[in-house]
Amino acid sequence: MGNDKLPIINSPEELRALAPEKLPDVCAELRQTLIRHLASNPGHFASSMGAVDLTVALHYVFDTPRDRIVWDVGHQAYAHKLLTGRRDRFHTNRTLGGICGFPTPEESPYDTFAAGHASNSISAALGMSIASSLDNEVPRRHVVAVIGDASISGGLAFEGLNNVANTPNNLLIILNDNEMSIDHNTGALSRYLSGFNTSRRYNRMRYKGYTFLRRIGLLGDGSRGPLIRFGNSLKALFTRQQNIFEGLNIRYFGPIDGNDVREVVKVLSDIKDLDGPKLLHLRTRKGLGFPAAEADPATWHAPGRFDPVTGIRQDSANACPKWQDIFGQTLLEMAGLDSRVVGITAAMSTGTSICIMQESMPGRTFDVGISEGHAVTFAAGLAKEGKKPFVAIYSAFLQRAYDHIVNDVALLRLPVTLCIDRAGIVGEDGATHHGAFDLAYLRTVPGMTIAAPSTADQLRSLMITALKFDGPFAIRYPRGCVPDSPAQTEPAPMPVGKGYKMRSGAALTFLTIGPIAHTVAEATALLASRGIEAAHFDMIFLRPLDDDIMAQAVSSGAPIITVEDGIRDGGLGSAVTEWLSDHGHSEIPVTRLGLPTDHFVTHGSSSQLYKLCGLDVGSIADTAASILSK
Amino acid sequence: MGNDKLPIINSPEELRALAPEKLPDVCAELRQTLIRHLASNPGHFASSMGAVDLTVALHYVFDTPRDRIVWDVGHQAYAHKLLTGRRDRFHTNRTLGGICGFPTPEESPYDTFAAGHASNSISAALGMSIASSLDNEVPRRHVVAVIGDASISGGLAFEGLNNVANTPNNLLIILNDNEMSIDHNTGALSRYLSGFNTSRRYNRMRYKGYTFLRRIGLLGDGSRGPLIRFGNSLKALFTRQQNIFEGLNIRYFGPIDGNDVREVVKVLSDIKDLDGPKLLHLRTRKGLGFPAAEADPATWHAPGRFDPVTGIRQDSANACPKWQDIFGQTLLEMAGLDSRVVGITAAMSTGTSICIMQESMPGRTFDVGISEGHAVTFAAGLAKEGKKPFVAIYSAFLQRAYDHIVNDVALLRLPVTLCIDRAGIVGEDGATHHGAFDLAYLRTVPGMTIAAPSTADQLRSLMITALKFDGPFAIRYPRGCVPDSPAQTEPAPMPVGKGYKMRSGAALTFLTIGPIAHTVAEATALLASRGIEAAHFDMIFLRPLDDDIMAQAVSSGAPIITVEDGIRDGGLGSAVTEWLSDHGHSEIPVTRLGLPTDHFVTHGSSSQLYKLCGLDVGSIADTAASILSK
Repeated sequence: MGNDKLPIINSPEELRALAPEKLPDVCAELRQTLIRHLASNPGHFASSMGAVDLTVALHYVFDTPRDRIVWDVGHQAYAHKLLTGRRDRFHTNRTLGGICGFPTPEESPYDTFAAGHASNSISAALGMSIASSLDNEVPRRHVVAVIGDASISGGLAFEGLNNVANTPNNLLIILNDNEMSIDHNTGALSRYLSGFNTSRRYNRMRYKGYTFLRRIGLLGDGSRGPLIRFGNSLKALFTRQQNIFEGLNIRYFGPIDGNDVREVVKVLSDIKDLDGPKLLHLRTRKGLGFPAAEADPATWHAPGRFDPVTGIRQDSANACPKWQDIFGQTLLEMAGLDSRVVGITAAMSTGTSICIMQESMPGRTFDVGISEGHAVTFAAGLAKEGKKPFVAIYSAFLQRAYDHIVNDVALLRLPVTLCIDRAGIVGEDGATHHGAFDLAYLRTVPGMTIAAPSTADQLRSLMITALKFDGPFAIRYPRGCVPDSPAQTEPAPMPVGKGYKMRSGAALTFLTIGPIAHTVAEATALLASRGIEAAHFDMIFLRPLDDDIMAQAVSSGAPIITVEDGIRDGGLGSAVTEWLSDHGHSEIPVTRLGLPTDHFVTHGSSSQLYKLCGLDVGSIADTAASILSK
Repeated sequence: MGNDKLPIINSPEELRALAPEKLPDVCAELRQTLIRHLASNPGHFASSMGAVDLTVALHYVFDTPRDRIVWDVGHQAYAHKLLTGRRDRFHTNRTLGGICGFPTPEESPYDTFAAGHASNSISAALGMSIASSLDNEVPRRHVVAVIGDASISGGLAFEGLNNVANTPNNLLIILNDNEMSIDHNTGALSRYLSGFNTSRRYNRMRYKGYTFLRRIGLLGDGSRGPLIRFGNSLKALFTRQQNIFEGLNIRYFGPIDGNDVREVVKVLSDIKDLDGPKLLHLRTRKGLGFPAAEADPATWHAPGRFDPVTGIRQDSANACPKWQDIFGQTLLEMAGLDSRVVGITAAMSTGTSICIMQESMPGRTFDVGISEGHAVTFAAGLAKEGKKPFVAIYSAFLQRAYDHIVNDVALLRLPVTLCIDRAGIVGEDGATHHGAFDLAYLRTVPGMTIAAPSTADQLRSLMITALKFDGPFAIRYPRGCVPDSPAQTEPAPMPVGKGYKMRSGAALTFLTIGPIAHTVAEATALLASRGIEAAHFDMIFLRPLDDDIMAQAVSSGAPIITVEDGIRDGGLGSAVTEWLSDHGHSEIPVTRLGLPTDHFVTHGSSSQLYKLCGLDVGSIADTAASILSK
C-alpha cells in the first residue's frame, strides 16, 4: 500500500515533534485515511480533503487546544478530528453514538464552538479572543477562525468582520478559498506579494510611501487606519481581488497556496504574533488527492459510498424520487405557465433542486449565496412588485430569516411562498441540521399560512395553491424520498385549511401533519391488529387548522394523539390543544408526540432517530395503547 | 414668521414644477413645518431634519411613485410624508388612527416597503429593481434605496450589497451618512472627486490608467470588475474612507454634501441613468436647521416635546425610573462584584441604558452596532471562555438573532443572558417595534430559561439569578417606567421556575407574567368590588413553569385566565394549556389573553393599544365576568 511508510499521527503533540519536512507525509497519510473511511462510511469528502494541509499547519504552528481554532460550518474538519484523538472512533463518524460530522465541544476540547450554521466563526472567535484579553492571559492565547469563501458571504460573517475591525483584538481569520480555481498568473503574483507583505522590506516601503503621501498632504494624521488602508490599496491595484477586507482595516495576507503545508506553516509562523486583527487568504483545492473529486468537487461534496480505488460512486441509494425533486420539477412547470413565478435559494441550489428551474430559466432563478435573510427580504421586494417568489431554503437555515419573515413578508402580507426543505429529522448531519423548529416559529407569525404535504401529489397541489393564494405561505417537507410518485396530471389547487380522513375508528383519533402520516398509518394498522380501531386525519395545514376535522374529533370524544416531525411545544400538538381549549372542548385529552423540547436531537440514521424520539411505528402504537389502558 | 413667503408643497408633481433655485426654499419650509409639528407631537426629529434636502432632491429628480424610493428604518422620512400628500394629517403622526411614524405601504403608494427593522432596504429594492427588469418596463423604473450609515453595518445590508454586485440591475443606493462630522479637508477633496467621477474626463483618465496597467501585465482580461476596481482603488488612495463598496464592484460616487439640495439634484440627475448598480455617498447633518439639535443630535434623535423657539425640551415625562435604567444600574453593580460580567448591545446603548456600564467599564461593554446576530454569537464566544455576557437588545430586533440563540447559545448550553428590552407593546413606534413575539419564539428553543419581572426588585433579582445560573437565560421587560423603586438592598438570587401568589380567590385563577400583573391586580380588585374573588399568581417564569402554582390552580378547580403582553399563541397561555393537557387536567378551562395572532398591533399610546387588545383593566375584568356568567 505504501501507507505503512507514512507517519500516523494521533495528537497535535506528536505532530509538533516532527520536523517540518515530514509534514507533507502526514498530509498524505491523512488523505489516505479519509479516502479509506469515507469510501465506506459516507460524509463530507471534498472539503475535508482540500483542508488537510491547512489543518496540519494549524495544529503544527499553534498550541492547540490552548490556542483556539474555530471552524466555520466544519465540513472541512475531518483531518482535525483524526489529528485530535479521534482516529480510533473515526469509523463511527455521523452514526448514532459515534462522533459528530461537525466539530462539537461536547466531543473534544479541540472543538471550540458550534459549527453547523455558516458564518458564525468570526463572531464566536472574536468573543473568545476578547475573553482572553480581558483575562490578560500570558502568553497570549491565539484564536483562529477558519472560514470558507462561501460562508464569508453571510451577513453574520460581515457583522463579525466589521466588529473585528473596530475592537482591539489579535484575531487571525483564515479564509479557506476553495471555489476559485487557481490561476497561474494570479497565483504567482500572489505568492510574491505574500512574501512581500510579511517581509521587512515591504513594511519599510509601505511606510515610505505613506510618509510621502502625508508630506504632500493627501493623508492626514497618523492613525493606524490610513496606513494600513494605504498598504491594502496598493495591493488592491495589483491583485484584482474582490477584496473587502482592505476596506475594513484588517491586515490582509495572501492569497497563498493553502495546499502547500510548509508554505502555510511558514506564513502562519510569520504572522501569528503580529498585533491586531489579520486575515490570511488561502487558496485550496477541494478534493485534492483524489482525482475524481478534484475533477467534480460539487458532486464529491458529500458523495455517498464509493470505490476507494476506481472512484466509482455507489449512488443507487439516491435513485428514489426525492421531495426536493418534486419541488424543483413542479416549480419549473409553474414558472412555464405563470410568468410571475420566480425561484430563490441561498446556496442550496442543488440541495433544494431549484437547479432544475435555474437550468431552464436562469433569469428567473436566483441563488443569492449564504444569505437566508436577504433571500427572504429580496423575495418580499419581488412580491411587492407583483412577482410570485418561491423561496427554497432548508428548515434549520431558514431560522436565520425569522425576523425577515415577520417584518418584511408577514407585516406587508406579501405572497412569498417559503418552500422549507429538510424539515424534521435529517439524519446523519445531526443536531445543527434537523429542521425541528419551523412549525413552531412560523406559528408565531401573524397571517402565515402553514402547510406540510404527506405525498408528492400534495406537495404539487400545495405549490399551485400557494401560487393562487394572496399572502405569506409556508410549505415544509423533509429530506429524502417521497412515499409515492406524483400522478401525471396537472396539480390542482386545494382548499386552504382543509385536511382529510385517512382512517375511521372510535377508540382514538390521530391528527398528523406531513409524511409522518405514513408512520402513523402503519401504527394504526398495527393497533387494528391488536383490536384497537383508531381514526386518523392528515391535517395538511397547521394554520388555518381544519375546524371540520377538529369538530369530528370532538364529536367522537376519543382521546387525541397528535404526531409531528417537529419540536413538541409550539407546533401541531399545541395548536390542537389550544383549539380545544378555545372552543370549550378541553375535556378531550390530547397526547402530543414530537421532537424533544429540552435537548437537541443527535445524529444517526433517520429511522434510529425517530425511534429515539418515540416516533417510530412501534413506539407510536405503544403510546396509543398505553393511553387506552390508563 | 417669514414662513408665508416660502412655497408650501403638497405633492411631488407640484415640486417638480418648480425651478431648481426654488428648492432651498422648499427645504426651509419643510424644516419649519417639522419643527412646528414635532415641538408639540413628539417623534424622530434630528434624522428627519437632516434628510430634508435629500428627500426633496429625490422627489424632484425621480418620477415618484412610479420610481420607487425605499427608505431604510425611516426615522428620516417625515419630509417624505409631508411631500407626498400627508401634510394635512401630519399632526396625527404616531397617534392611534393617525399616520405611522415610519413609511408603510398601507398608507401611501409613495411608501414602498416596510421600514422599521434596519438594513432591509437594499435587499427589498433589489427585488423591486429586478421585478421591473423582468417585466422589461419602458421607460426604466428607477429604484432607490436610502440607507443610513448605521443601518449599512447590519449583515442584511451586506448580504444585499453582495447580491447587488453580483446580479444585473440598475439599483441606486444612497448612503445617508450623518454620523461622521464634516471635515473641511475631506469635504473639499470629496466634492472635487465627486465632480471628477461623474465627468467624462475622469472616466477617460480611468480608462487610460486601466489600459496602461493591462499593457504592462498587471491587470488581466477586460472584465468589468477590474476596471471599476481600479477606479475605486485610486479613489481609496485619496479619500481615506472606510469604503467597502469598492471591493464589491458597485460604482461609488461621493461623498458629497447631502444638505446642498441643488448639488444633490445635479448629481442624481447625472447618475440616475447610468447602467449597473451604483452608490451615492451623501454627508448630511442630523438636526440641521435647529441649532439645539445640531449641537446634540443624539439627544434630539427623539427629543419629546420642546419649545420651537428656545429649543428647551420638556422632558419631565422622562423623569420616572425606567426598566432600562434598573437594568443598566444593576448590570454595573454586578460587573463590579464579578469580573466575569460583560455587557453587550447592538446600537441600543442609550436605549437599553447599557451606557451606564459603558461609561464606567468601557473595556467590558461592547456596542457592536446594528448586528443583533453578531451580538448573540459574540456573546456565546465570550461565554464559551468563561465570561458571563448580558446582551441587551430590544425584543423586536432580537428576532434577527433567533437562529444565533438556537445554534450558538442553546445548542452549547452557554450562560448567555438575553436582557430583552421593549418587550410587549411599545406604543407610538407601532407595528414594527412592538415586542410581541419573544415569549413565543424563545419557548421553541431547547433549554432556554425564560423570565419576566413585574417589579424593579424582581428584575434585579432575576439578573443576579441569571449570573449564578449555568445556561441560557432570557429576561424580558417593557419600555417605560417601573411600577416601584428597587429596595436599597443587594439583589438576592431567586429560585428558578418559581412564581408567587398575589391574591387568593375561589372564583377564578389569573396567571400572569411580567408587569401586566399590575393591570390584572387592578382588574381583580374591580372584580372583588363586584363580588367576584379571583386568585392571581405572578408566574415570573415562563419556563420552567411553576408546577406548584399549577397544582394550586388545578386543585382550586376554578377557570384559569392567562394574561401576557405578547402574542396569544405560543407564550404563557399556550404553556399553561399544554401543562394542563400533559398533566391530565385539561378539564380546567383556560382563557388566554394576549396580543392578536392574525394581525400586527398598530401605533398609538400604550394605554390605547392595551385597550384595543383587550388588555386594560376594564376589558380584563369584563372578560373574567363573562366567563363566569357562561
